[in-house]
Amino acid sequence: MNIQFFMPTKVMMGKDCIAANAGELAALGKKALIVTGRASAKANGSLADVIAALSANGQEFEIYDKVMSNPTIDCVYDGANAAREAGADFIVAIGGGSPMDAAKGIALLARQDIPREELFSGNYHKDVLPMAFVPTTAGTGSEVTPYSILTNDKLQTKTSIASPLLFPKLAFLDAKYTEGLSKATAVNTAIDALSHSVEGMLSIRANKLSDCLAAESIRGIFSCMDSLKAGTLSFEEREVLLYSSMLGGVVISHTGTTAVHSMGYSLTYFRGIDHGRANGLLLGEFLKLVEKTFPEKVSEIVSLGGLPSANEFKAKLFELLGEMESFEADELEKYSDIAVNAKNVKNGIVVPTKEEILNIYKNSLMR
Amino acid sequence: MNIQFFMPTKVMMGKDCIAANAGELAALGKKALIVTGRASAKANGSLADVIAALSANGQEFEIYDKVMSNPTIDCVYDGANAAREAGADFIVAIGGGSPMDAAKGIALLARQDIPREELFSGNYHKDVLPMAFVPTTAGTGSEVTPYSILTNDKLQTKTSIASPLLFPKLAFLDAKYTEGLSKATAVNTAIDALSHSVEGMLSIRANKLSDCLAAESIRGIFSCMDSLKAGTLSFEEREVLLYSSMLGGVVISHTGTTAVHSMGYSLTYFRGIDHGRANGLLLGEFLKLVEKTFPEKVSEIVSLGGLPSANEFKAKLFELLGEMESFEADELEKYSDIAVNAKNVKNGIVVPTKEEILNIYKNSLMR
Repeated sequence: MNIQFFMPTKVMMGKDCIAANAGELAALGKKALIVTGRASAKANGSLADVIAALSANGQEFEIYDKVMSNPTIDCVYDGANAAREAGADFIVAIGGGSPMDAAKGIALLARQDIPREELFSGNYHKDVLPMAFVPTTAGTGSEVTPYSILTNDKLQTKTSIASPLLFPKLAFLDAKYTEGLSKATAVNTAIDALSHSVEGMLSIRANKLSDCLAAESIRGIFSCMDSLKAGTLSFEEREVLLYSSMLGGVVISHTGTTAVHSMGYSLTYFRGIDHGRANGLLLGEFLKLVEKTFPEKVSEIVSLGGLPSANEFKAKLFELLGEMESFEADELEKYSDIAVNAKNVKNGIVVPTKEEILNIYKNSLMR
Repeated sequence: MNIQFFMPTKVMMGKDCIAANAGELAALGKKALIVTGRASAKANGSLADVIAALSANGQEFEIYDKVMSNPTIDCVYDGANAAREAGADFIVAIGGGSPMDAAKGIALLARQDIPREELFSGNYHKDVLPMAFVPTTAGTGSEVTPYSILTNDKLQTKTSIASPLLFPKLAFLDAKYTEGLSKATAVNTAIDALSHSVEGMLSIRANKLSDCLAAESIRGIFSCMDSLKAGTLSFEEREVLLYSSMLGGVVISHTGTTAVHSMGYSLTYFRGIDHGRANGLLLGEFLKLVEKTFPEKVSEIVSLGGLPSANEFKAKLFELLGEMESFEADELEKYSDIAVNAKNVKNGIVVPTKEEILNIYKNSLMR
């Protein structure tokens, strides 16, 4: 039994957890750069809660609210400049995966001069701004991962900065911030979390502990499926989803993701399809491929959702995902060329060939 | 759903994990004080593995092998002097709970002058020697807790130093070191781990995540029950027990223990009964008491072991524990007086009265 486990982020979950644990923020520094997107943190109350806590602690702050969806490399260099100019000595990130992933790059670049061509090298010295994360969707799990996933226009896909330095010090999980999410965002983010936990169980780096946490996460997400589909999530269900997405983050911190993520990136990069939705569209077909070689593993996974096989798993996800975008065969050829060379593809217990990748795309996306 | 989760120790588990991860030790410092007991670390190969890793890293070391079972306050002050005299800048602890618990006190006192009357105050500054832990029994979970539990002669019980400063940086879990344990020690330590996970589920501080980990731990320990009883543990089962005891440590790091531990301390202090065995003798009767108020919670726990009720749970443990020591009513009165005032008693979802405590003692220990 080989296990490596490392997750140093302090997680505080509960209604009004920022106010209840404001003192934890006090230890991070004197002046925060609050990294967020344009609007949602203002609308859902998370920004106000963070500002109230910082103010109660007598901490200064500036707001950097220029993080776009699927943040770019430019964005993190720009944010790092903002952190330096503000004289910030810590970061508070608020939002979905985009602000959180950008914030990690910003925290690193604010303290280290790293040329663009070395940004993904993994060769960093130890200095990084300490970070507190406030997820406002229940999907990415970025609040407990050492990954900053950025859109890489040069490679026409997403690329990760991965370093234990990037674990946030603190994560505040309050489901009230997810109450205003659209139904589509709630679904897409939940499927992103599901994809992390399922892919974690299909990783060559999976171990008994990561599987235990993944199973807890998958059970949690499936317990909310009907309400997700109906758009009737209760507060308690939102908490289960937020908890499950955090667990999914812990899982992929140890296992990484698989071909599903590699393949999904093209759908996002070229077609603007939401990241979670992109994974959801492909996850069922990938499970069907893995089922041929590892039927027991796939049975273990799908039975966590009360389902008999990968086929029903796919059908369940497709019910949730609704109407399908249309795709042409030649674009799927192009995506396959990109995906087959991605690092994550080799991380699965089944490593699909280019032909298998193309088949997954076609069977998932073409009627 | 309120959850706090914090466990910053990097866990590396697997056969020969020290050699495979020797580089992790290199970051801790230049000279180690190896804290251990008299003999076992030499006999089971763990000391040799640690020395080989330190030597490969070019790190110096001295050995402090004076830790006794149920280490005293004197012991940690003495060990701290040894660390200072050696000029050690980190600690490697090897052994069961006793060397590991002592090592945490030593790491603290080597860097901070704390008068004895303030040792348990929780008021420490941040400086502590970094620690790497090598458990050689599968019971205590001390390698992933922030607790140093010491025999307190003034109070005639055990008292805990508790501080997040005391989390080891590294934990190396290699089940080969447990292969030479006597059957009695294997049983007693497994029951200690079981007690941590069961008590964790009965704590007022239990949450969904601690319960998930506790359940995984309880399932693991029960899967080894027959082999424990027969004295025929395989290497794979020893790994399951080591994994389960680590999880039990993660659980009590978040939940603390309950009346069972408070009551067990007297059996150890006054009668020299092994700590795990002491808990095992009392755990079934405590579950029976809790069952009256929380039948569903107890059913959830005992069903993890495939058992129908607390009564069968108690019977299962007693089968394993073998012949009983004999006790007099008046000594149990004395132990009840001590236990009712212990901090842990109030940490359970059922807080037993003095009379209930006495009844648990009597029903557990007198035929």
